Amino acid sequence: MSLGPITGGTLYGVGVGPGERDYLTLRAVAVIRAADVVAFFAKKGGAGTARTIVGDLVPKGRRELPLHYPMTTERPPHDPVYREELAAFYEAACAQLADELSAGRSVAVLAEGDPFFYGSFMHLWRRLVGRFPVEIVPGVTGMSGCWTRAGVPITWGDDALAVLPATLPAERLTAKLRDADAAVVMKLGRNLPKVRRALAEAGLTERAVYVERGTMHGERVLPLSEKEDDEAPYFSVVLVPGEGRRP
Amino acid sequence: MSLGPITGGTLYGVGVGPGERDYLTLRAVAVIRAADVVAFFAKKGGAGTARTIVGDLVPKGRRELPLHYPMTTERPPHDPVYREELAAFYEAACAQLADELSAGRSVAVLAEGDPFFYGSFMHLWRRLVGRFPVEIVPGVTGMSGCWTRAGVPITWGDDALAVLPATLPAERLTAKLRDADAAVVMKLGRNLPKVRRALAEAGLTERAVYVERGTMHGERVLPLSEKEDDEAPYFSVVLVPGEGRRP
Ligand SMILES: C[S@@+](CC[C@H](N)C(=O)[O-])C[C@H]1O[C@@H](n2cnc3c(N)ncnc32)[C@H](O)[C@@H]1O
Ligand SMILES: C[S@@+](CC[C@H](N)C(=O)[O-])C[C@H]1O[C@@H](n2cnc3c(N)ncnc32)[C@H](O)[C@@H]1O
Repeated sequence: MSLGPITGGTLYGVGVGPGERDYLTLRAVAVIRAADVVAFFAKKGGAGTARTIVGDLVPKGRRELPLHYPMTTERPPHDPVYREELAAFYEAACAQLADELSAGRSVAVLAEGDPFFYGSFMHLWRRLVGRFPVEIVPGVTGMSGCWTRAGVPITWGDDALAVLPATLPAERLTAKLRDADAAVVMKLGRNLPKVRRALAEAGLTERAVYVERGTMHGERVLPLSEKEDDEAPYFSVVLVPGEGRRP
Repeated sequence: MSLGPITGGTLYGVGVGPGERDYLTLRAVAVIRAADVVAFFAKKGGAGTARTIVGDLVPKGRRELPLHYPMTTERPPHDPVYREELAAFYEAACAQLADELSAGRSVAVLAEGDPFFYGSFMHLWRRLVGRFPVEIVPGVTGMSGCWTRAGVPITWGDDALAVLPATLPAERLTAKLRDADAAVVMKLGRNLPKVRRALAEAGLTERAVYVERGTMHGERVLPLSEKEDDEAPYFSVVLVPGEGRRP
């Protein structure tokens, strides 16, 4: 793969990093500036986090394509109805992108952090990958942004790192944390009480650091034990830094 | 923390990403261009991988400080003699950096990938962090570069990701792989035969992708099952992509 010119008809999955604009890569900036169409996920009425991160890097007047998540109900991700709604949404979004690509336009889809790491972009990618040329632009992950701002190296020496969605069942979360040298718990939201219990059972409460909106506007970093409520926004993680070999 | 001007007397730990120059962040480029001193690890006689990645971003004539690893012997990392040699090396390197910083010069230490993710830079950082102002510039990790070039999203939905150094004991590697939804095995080198056995015991051989020098000169990507020898350079990983929820 070469990092050549931005080409019409190509789909770009562009990692925009954790939040801070200066943590975009040179390639991400080049693609965002040159693409014919800039697409991004957004809640209805919201600006879209990835779109907010890139700000005025998108040239004025450039064609923008917000992809509005279906947020009609409060269904859990495993609910088959929600799954169908979501599938229909991705299909429709891909139809829009395919129109642009078939017309020979280059499309940059903005993705928070790295596109291939728990990214919604992947659901578009898997539907389009055989049909159009694709370039993925990797990005600094949200978790890297978080451990940077927390001032804690995450893994040393032979540490095994567990990256765990807080959406996992409580027992699995606990077992994984028990066995981990270092951990990052993602997708906190309303799962924070469960995560706290799992950390406590694994004896990790004292090592846990809570980071909210790392490198974004409104960033907060504190020891989890000092966080008094159980409110956690979507963009938050718990870090358990490793304690491996330090010559 | 603000991303203000590059300031004399400050230590910068600069992630330079996986290899491709265009995967540096805007902040990394700004720091590398402006720092009074650019330091980097290198083997005696070698150019240093991080230094090679940034190429001519370092202005001509800028003060450069190669930090030469002790590679006298072939000792394993757990060997106490090796540990002492390494500690002495880090102490000496920090003394050099402290001289520069105390004289009011800004020092950028280049780090492959992200500085706080298994980075040698961390051994300098922990010795200097209380004594001088520090800014960490996160980077795209080597593993992100690798899954990008392999064309495989690494985690979907509720996948738990295990990041495992190949230096772990065989049984621990096997147990961790058995229990993982997705995995990245780092630091392959001479551990590839052990990693292959662990993958086989965990039933993951068919899913494993081998990536060597991802996004660097000499990149190779192939299914691990198609790799015929057991030679793996330092910059190589095995990826086991997750198979989680895909609406
Ligand atoms: C669907 S995942 C997407 C991850 C993204 N692709 C990445 O590389 O970071 C979203 C989760 O990532 C974490 N996250 C991403 N960016 C973050 C940030 N700036 N601060 C805190 N958490 C973040 C949160 O746990 C959030 O629930
Ligand atoms: C000491 S760790 C440093 C990791 C680095 N700080 C990062 O963020 O990727 C070195 C290991 O990272 C992996 N690695 C880093 N960059 C790589 C690349 N471009 N291609 C393949 N493996 C890489 C290899 O497994 C290597 O043994």
